[in-house]
Amino acid sequence: MINSLTDVRGIQCWGAHVGIKSKRRDLALIYSDVPGNAAAVFTRNLVVAEPVKVAREYVRNGRAQCFVVNAGNANACTGEQGRNGALAMAATTAEELNIAKEDVLVASTGIIGRRFPTEKVVQGIRENVPKLSNRPIAGQLAANAILTTDTFTKEGSTSFDIGGKTVNLAAIAKGSGMIHPDMGTMLAFLVSDCAIDQRLLDQAFRQAIDQSFNMITVDGDTSTNDMAAILCNGLAKNRPIEDADSEDYAIFAQHLAELCQHLARQIISDGEGATKMIEYRVINAPSTEAARQIVRTVSNSTLVKCAIYGQDPNWGRILAAAGRAGVDFDPDKAELFIGTAGDLRQVMRNGRATNQNLDEVAELMGESSLTVHLNLNQGDGEAIGWGADLSVEYVQFNSQYST
Amino acid sequence: MINSLTDVRGIQCWGAHVGIKSKRRDLALIYSDVPGNAAAVFTRNLVVAEPVKVAREYVRNGRAQCFVVNAGNANACTGEQGRNGALAMAATTAEELNIAKEDVLVASTGIIGRRFPTEKVVQGIRENVPKLSNRPIAGQLAANAILTTDTFTKEGSTSFDIGGKTVNLAAIAKGSGMIHPDMGTMLAFLVSDCAIDQRLLDQAFRQAIDQSFNMITVDGDTSTNDMAAILCNGLAKNRPIEDADSEDYAIFAQHLAELCQHLARQIISDGEGATKMIEYRVINAPSTEAARQIVRTVSNSTLVKCAIYGQDPNWGRILAAAGRAGVDFDPDKAELFIGTAGDLRQVMRNGRATNQNLDEVAELMGESSLTVHLNLNQGDGEAIGWGADLSVEYVQFNSQYST
Repeated sequence: MINSLTDVRGIQCWGAHVGIKSKRRDLALIYSDVPGNAAAVFTRNLVVAEPVKVAREYVRNGRAQCFVVNAGNANACTGEQGRNGALAMAATTAEELNIAKEDVLVASTGIIGRRFPTEKVVQGIRENVPKLSNRPIAGQLAANAILTTDTFTKEGSTSFDIGGKTVNLAAIAKGSGMIHPDMGTMLAFLVSDCAIDQRLLDQAFRQAIDQSFNMITVDGDTSTNDMAAILCNGLAKNRPIEDADSEDYAIFAQHLAELCQHLARQIISDGEGATKMIEYRVINAPSTEAARQIVRTVSNSTLVKCAIYGQDPNWGRILAAAGRAGVDFDPDKAELFIGTAGDLRQVMRNGRATNQNLDEVAELMGESSLTVHLNLNQGDGEAIGWGADLSVEYVQFNSQYST
Repeated sequence: MINSLTDVRGIQCWGAHVGIKSKRRDLALIYSDVPGNAAAVFTRNLVVAEPVKVAREYVRNGRAQCFVVNAGNANACTGEQGRNGALAMAATTAEELNIAKEDVLVASTGIIGRRFPTEKVVQGIRENVPKLSNRPIAGQLAANAILTTDTFTKEGSTSFDIGGKTVNLAAIAKGSGMIHPDMGTMLAFLVSDCAIDQRLLDQAFRQAIDQSFNMITVDGDTSTNDMAAILCNGLAKNRPIEDADSEDYAIFAQHLAELCQHLARQIISDGEGATKMIEYRVINAPSTEAARQIVRTVSNSTLVKCAIYGQDPNWGRILAAAGRAGVDFDPDKAELFIGTAGDLRQVMRNGRATNQNLDEVAELMGESSLTVHLNLNQGDGEAIGWGADLSVEYVQFNSQYST
């Protein structure tokens, strides 16, 4: 594991304070010396921030060379003024770097509905493009500059072998807990020096997102600004990955999914007021989609989250949440286990209580990392997801706000 | 307004303590001197309590003469033993009353996954059937005996004129907040002396439920035991309602919906840890279903509920929740108002902030009864729903549990 975006060949970064926030860094630049294949996924919320609209347009050509991100202002519900701001953000970056504006993907995170400070951002870009650097610290500054209420940076990287060449893959992300006026947004930016066909990159990326960021939940609310993007510049000079059935593709896809999961777990751990991280596993479900749906519904249940906060092995709540997931299954065949990764206790069999001593399970639930394992015994669909508990602190945090 | 089930002609009730709970009343009987047309709706959760399965079978003939309900044990996840218990509950009641067992609808609420105390319930029924009474206090005892964590009984009644005859309609209900091991369940029992065709009764009842109990949310979790049932014994001797297009039907349906909404609001007011009741109105939506979906998603958003608890006029959260409701609408046409029924303040116009002073709105939000009004300006669908806030007390309450 290496730990900076700049460990990827040809990647330069910077993170700076340009005055959107009062003190903390609020502008990140991630640049590749050469343009690369790119893919991106965006929030499915109907209320979409202006930078999301612009990035959605620009990534259609499947190419990118730079990500530019501001924190402190979401540029959402800002209308024409906001759209012009997002366009200026891309155009200025392109101009300073002497690249095509369509190769610049913009993203924002911060307060909704407040005028976008275009002048500060444009001037900040002009001042900071010259500082782009491939030193590790530059990647860390970028990781820091995209944060809002996160308490730590989320970074990760990996390298692997494709036909004798070492390929590097690195990423930064920020958390998903939404807070006062909707500062929360899930952002992730990935870079790699892998040579890979754009359509295959897109396919692998969507699949990785589905198995990671789409399977975490802190509060079930999706932001107006959520975005994840990847850029592969091919500088590893590996034999290009061009076949979805090849082993090379499988290796790339696997590492990509694992890195995304690594980031997703970091986001959960840093969830607002979270005291525990829970891994939810559903196996032997009627279908993969059914398993995913159950994981999502259970991990997002207020009552399940309260029970876990209170170290309560309340399997009835878990089963009842699964039962309302909109998935057809026979609860009388289900088995439920609660515990830690290394010590799972069966609390339910055939839809009924086992003789498991629940006091012991409650004690196990004192751990900060828990596993809930549901075996439906009726198919071969499976899914894994991650969630936080719901603590008194979460409510306090999310209800204290002054305009 | 009258206030007891027994104000309906031919209705006798009783509520007693039979030993399922340690001290409080736990068995309710609601009996009609003559059998009547009946309709019932049940939880859509896949995990279904045994009494729900039995009542679902028995109500298929569209007739009922008695409701028998126990609190303290949900008879869910109890298998064959539980099914036999639910069957015995109906059979014993039928035997003691000398009526058909299919005319007895059973319901339970309480702890999930614990052996059903059939002997206590059966003996309790035998001892209490002779006590059935048409005195108002008997209806109130029944209303009290179906409660679990509710802090007050939910009752309501109304009377209206059908062709010169006074028709009475009365109801009791219990709350929906789910607590330690899933004691929460929404139950409602309605009785009327109206003469009405069974298919029309079923139609009016489903519509009333859709506009009331299905539009309230405390925590989004549906119970294994939810059930609402109505019995109309025809003793008002009104001209029978047999035409869905008649004014008589419209009057009946309107009063039924209003009574259900009255009960639904009581349930919200008594929600666990709720400090505020919020009425959510969506108007000019693309369709009624779209409006309903938005009301449900917004009223169930953890972040919106936290914001309301904190008196935070956080319109971004409300709009973002609407945006993920799975409904297609243009946020740039939307207008949002927050306040009380008599003093609504516009905080958003065309998807952007208005000049409304948000400090004033925050102060208004100190009231215990609030209104959130969203005008989409793109269609004529509308819906109303009710929800509670999410308080620190809710989390404390739902995380404190000892087996």
